[in-house]
Amino acid sequence: MVRTAKPVSYEIRIRDDLFGLDRTDLFDAGATTDGRARRFIVIDADVDLLHGERIRKYLDHHHAEYEIYVVPANETVKDFDTAARIVRKIDEFGIDRRREPVIVIGGGVLMDIVGLVGSLYRRGTPFVRVPTTLIGLVDAGVGAKTGVNFNGHKNRLGTYFPADLTLLDRAFLATLDRRHIGNGLAEILKIALIKDARLFDLLEQYGPVLLDEKFQGLTERGNLVAQEVLRRAIHGMLEELQPNLWEAKLERTVDYGHTFSPTVEMRALPELLHGEAVCVDMALTTMIGWRRGLVSADDRDRVLAVMRGLELPSWDPLLAQPALLTAALEDTVRHRNGQQRLPLPHGIGDAVFVNDVTAEELLLAVKDLSELGSTRSGAHV
Amino acid sequence: MVRTAKPVSYEIRIRDDLFGLDRTDLFDAGATTDGRARRFIVIDADVDLLHGERIRKYLDHHHAEYEIYVVPANETVKDFDTAARIVRKIDEFGIDRRREPVIVIGGGVLMDIVGLVGSLYRRGTPFVRVPTTLIGLVDAGVGAKTGVNFNGHKNRLGTYFPADLTLLDRAFLATLDRRHIGNGLAEILKIALIKDARLFDLLEQYGPVLLDEKFQGLTERGNLVAQEVLRRAIHGMLEELQPNLWEAKLERTVDYGHTFSPTVEMRALPELLHGEAVCVDMALTTMIGWRRGLVSADDRDRVLAVMRGLELPSWDPLLAQPALLTAALEDTVRHRNGQQRLPLPHGIGDAVFVNDVTAEELLLAVKDLSELGSTRSGAHV
Ligand SMILES: NC(=O)c1ccc[n+]([C@@H]2O[C@H](COP(=O)([O-])OP(=O)(O)OC[C@H]3O[C@@H](n4cnc5c(N)ncnc54)[C@H](O)[C@@H]3O)[C@@H](O)[C@H]2O)c1
Ligand SMILES: NC(=O)c1ccc[n+]([C@@H]2O[C@H](COP(=O)([O-])OP(=O)(O)OC[C@H]3O[C@@H](n4cnc5c(N)ncnc54)[C@H](O)[C@@H]3O)[C@@H](O)[C@H]2O)c1
Ligand SMILES: [Zn+2]
Ligand SMILES: [Zn+2]
Repeated sequence: MVRTAKPVSYEIRIRDDLFGLDRTDLFDAGATTDGRARRFIVIDADVDLLHGERIRKYLDHHHAEYEIYVVPANETVKDFDTAARIVRKIDEFGIDRRREPVIVIGGGVLMDIVGLVGSLYRRGTPFVRVPTTLIGLVDAGVGAKTGVNFNGHKNRLGTYFPADLTLLDRAFLATLDRRHIGNGLAEILKIALIKDARLFDLLEQYGPVLLDEKFQGLTERGNLVAQEVLRRAIHGMLEELQPNLWEAKLERTVDYGHTFSPTVEMRALPELLHGEAVCVDMALTTMIGWRRGLVSADDRDRVLAVMRGLELPSWDPLLAQPALLTAALEDTVRHRNGQQRLPLPHGIGDAVFVNDVTAEELLLAVKDLSELGSTRSGAHV
Repeated sequence: MVRTAKPVSYEIRIRDDLFGLDRTDLFDAGATTDGRARRFIVIDADVDLLHGERIRKYLDHHHAEYEIYVVPANETVKDFDTAARIVRKIDEFGIDRRREPVIVIGGGVLMDIVGLVGSLYRRGTPFVRVPTTLIGLVDAGVGAKTGVNFNGHKNRLGTYFPADLTLLDRAFLATLDRRHIGNGLAEILKIALIKDARLFDLLEQYGPVLLDEKFQGLTERGNLVAQEVLRRAIHGMLEELQPNLWEAKLERTVDYGHTFSPTVEMRALPELLHGEAVCVDMALTTMIGWRRGLVSADDRDRVLAVMRGLELPSWDPLLAQPALLTAALEDTVRHRNGQQRLPLPHGIGDAVFVNDVTAEELLLAVKDLSELGSTRSGAHV
């Protein structure tokens, strides 16, 4: 029996004004030849429209030799075909195997796809991530997971392949629409519920401010809150991910909200966004936690109120299909190697794992939720 | 900057009579439930025809709960589509993420494809390999590389993902045709040339016996030789692979014969087998080595004679296209991160790396080879 270990290293930097002309972070991973960086860049189509000119100016200023490949990205194109198209473009451009990292600028969808491409291209090509959505900044951009949907299943194909360098610049959020800010706030709420009561308080008190200001610090108070929320969310996430980068441990508190949501998200596609599906899952499991005496009625109501404050759904018509929920739980059990390992909230800011959620319990939770919690039911505006 | 390491462990066992009813090796990776193993098995179509009944008898004897998916495998179907079909079948069967390893029984093509599937399915599902070809036993089955061809390029998409357990049983070679034995002997010759003069002597003396007896030990002498050749080839390969499992070091002696051959193999498809293309590459680079004074005229002729003895081609009409060879070298340079890092033979049993092979030198080597070395030119019988 041979035991060995594959060394990896990666860096995550928080940077304001990343594409300011005097900045050089973007080229800090990989090599330059005669001071010029050769880079293949994949960019989200919306981001290109909104920020492309600035980014091209930056690249030209630094005499980079680059090609920008523009990809319209959203959950419905998160598939191997999109990855394959990117590979063909990289083949055309040609990159050196280890010193010309592929750069991806976009949301969680594009980062997950390009990360997969990086892990597969010539069995591993470095990449650099610039997340442009809130989910990207606090979640997809700080972990090591890559993936695409396949055969109707969320992220069925993927790898663990950390980006060499990830550059977090909240300025991108200025152009993100309100619904996608909420979408990211759902993953932040996840972190709050499982491990950070102070973060929950911030969301409770300032949810609407965060939505209004889009983390841009338009007011002094809004700025302080935005910074603290981002810092807590990112650090909380890293604390959970780093010691378990390859998920050797399958009991992951950050899987909270991700038991039923993969199935719900894929079935509702394109109606529900990822964070919205996670929020529906959290609402449902909050009900289970309450019935089990893990969450007080008071806390239960606070959680649902925060969801409303963040303009997130806590109900989806798909919940009314019991077969769908039990199928989701079954698939999760396979994913977690034969056990539910289901994180449930324990009060606010803590979690426990259980393995014995029953179909009846699920039905009851759905009933409870339909009576108590439904916001934005059906409509997904 | 976070530095960490992904732990991996794997095991390679040499076993005679692997599917003897009293053997349990096949189930030693992964778990059983109430003594029963649940396994998804991918098998090469030819192997299924020749050995399927025996394998099914073995599985039934051990009360395994299994599905066998039969895949016709050869280089022309080594693509993502084949991988995708396997994934769909696994989805249907359903496996627990960490304890129901996928088993692959077949040659290098199928092992590379299923290895890729394993590395991608739910971001990593364990797998067990049972190589059934000589290339599989001495090369594809002992490393960590997985891959499929893409966009006309050999193994353009792949991962490093060692099988949890690899079981080497030479009995499978009994049904392999003579040409595929030769094909495997080409990779053995590679090991001989770069690091094992004794192995070269064995190939020189017993090449025809190895082809005739297919490593089955039909005579006492043939048996001893077959065992020593297999042992030396496998151990030689492992010695090179294990300290460099992820190819952090791009100067790999085992890349010998693999500089021009990926392009030649893909262009000649389905005419040339993998090992045959490797052999053509070794013949060409032997000429370069000779012109550089690294290989004596005598050793050069011995090498060409051994190739003939193993019934391997040392010439292919594609070599007459200089543009193809320089393109191949360019792609290899990208693959080796900007430098040629070209292994050349140094006498017999040693290698050196060079970075300065020129187009003229290539032309000359082609001319030398066309005059001296051509065996089986054009025909690929
Ligand atoms: N790898 C991980 O660890 C991880 C973690 C969480 C989520 N995810 C994945 O991330 C995905 C969700 O990410 P997402 O919400 O970023 O989705 P997304 O990438 O689809 O982006 C959402 C939308 O915003 C647009 N957009 C992106 N940046 C913009 C900007 N600055 N201004 C205006 N529009 C912009 C995009 O074009 C898209 O239409 C899901 O597929 C989820 O599975 C992965
Ligand atoms: N991953 C690695 O490290 C590595 C190393 C070397 C080669 N390879 C890859 O391996 C492939 C070549 O492997 P291969 O030569 O085994 O090709 P292969 O898998 O195509 O098998 C060759 C042929 O033999 C048949 N076959 C297999 N076992 C048989 C048996 N026991 N009896 C009768 N017929 C049998 C197959 O159906 C096939 O037609 C190439 O794609 C090469 O790139 C990978
Ligand atoms: Zn998520
Ligand atoms: Zn090879």
